[in-house]
Amino acid sequence: MKKHTLSVTVENKPGVLTRVTTLFRRRVYNIESLTVGATENPTISRITIVVTGDKKIIEQVTKQLYKLVDVIKVVDITDERSVERELVLIKVKADNNVRAEIVQIVDIFRARIVDIGRNTLIVEATGDSRKIDAIEESLNPFGIVELVRTGKIAIVRGGKA
Amino acid sequence: MKKHTLSVTVENKPGVLTRVTTLFRRRVYNIESLTVGATENPTISRITIVVTGDKKIIEQVTKQLYKLVDVIKVVDITDERSVERELVLIKVKADNNVRAEIVQIVDIFRARIVDIGRNTLIVEATGDSRKIDAIEESLNPFGIVELVRTGKIAIVRGGKA
Repeated sequence: MKKHTLSVTVENKPGVLTRVTTLFRRRVYNIESLTVGATENPTISRITIVVTGDKKIIEQVTKQLYKLVDVIKVVDITDERSVERELVLIKVKADNNVRAEIVQIVDIFRARIVDIGRNTLIVEATGDSRKIDAIEESLNPFGIVELVRTGKIAIVRGGKA
Repeated sequence: MKKHTLSVTVENKPGVLTRVTTLFRRRVYNIESLTVGATENPTISRITIVVTGDKKIIEQVTKQLYKLVDVIKVVDITDERSVERELVLIKVKADNNVRAEIVQIVDIFRARIVDIGRNTLIVEATGDSRKIDAIEESLNPFGIVELVRTGKIAIVRGGKA
């Protein structure tokens, strides 16, 4: 079983998100992440969903998605040449002794410090899932107070939309 | 009616996302965006959901969320001092004549160019929703081929987690 990234373009209408997730839940092993957000067209949303599952099952789910009235397009971008990005916010313990060390790690990952508290820092980073895993691992020894990831979004490279 | 941002901490179990979205769909006017992703604890996920709705209704939904067995914590962070971030990928038309102009806009917004195609660029940007709206508006005249937003995630500032 492999992780698949599906990009589902839908009409921005009530209930469509619930119908799409229900369909996935019935068939695939697990939803790893899901985002739904705006696109270039205000009447249309894009759901990016990462699931673990057999290729055949993914194909079946794709067919069933097309039967939903508000689903416009379904693309399995797993094997496409695409730009994949995820955003993470990490609140990490940071007293004066370790702050410089954390700043160095943040620089290496081209991340950004977006808030400084008395004993904590909030770090923002973007990248593919592997990079996000790596920065999480690097900051873990300092003590992660809170961490939120958006889940992955993706756009196919080059001329093809 | 106002936009509310709710941060829902849940056990990472099958079906919980569907149950949460169903509950929202029944009560609130519209789900503006939703992300579900990993947290610092692999058994726990965080759902960040932006909804338009009356404050009373949001409070009712919060109570009902707590009745779901896999829901651990619900926080309405709308009025909290928090860091809010969203990620966007924008594929924009960019022939040689306008490329320099686009690079300038990207610099102003501290965004990044993450792919260069023959006639297109893919731009990655992070910020609060207003900043993402602004960069979208600035690139719109060049011709946006494709745009995906993750939806918002947030962490409360300072010591409080």
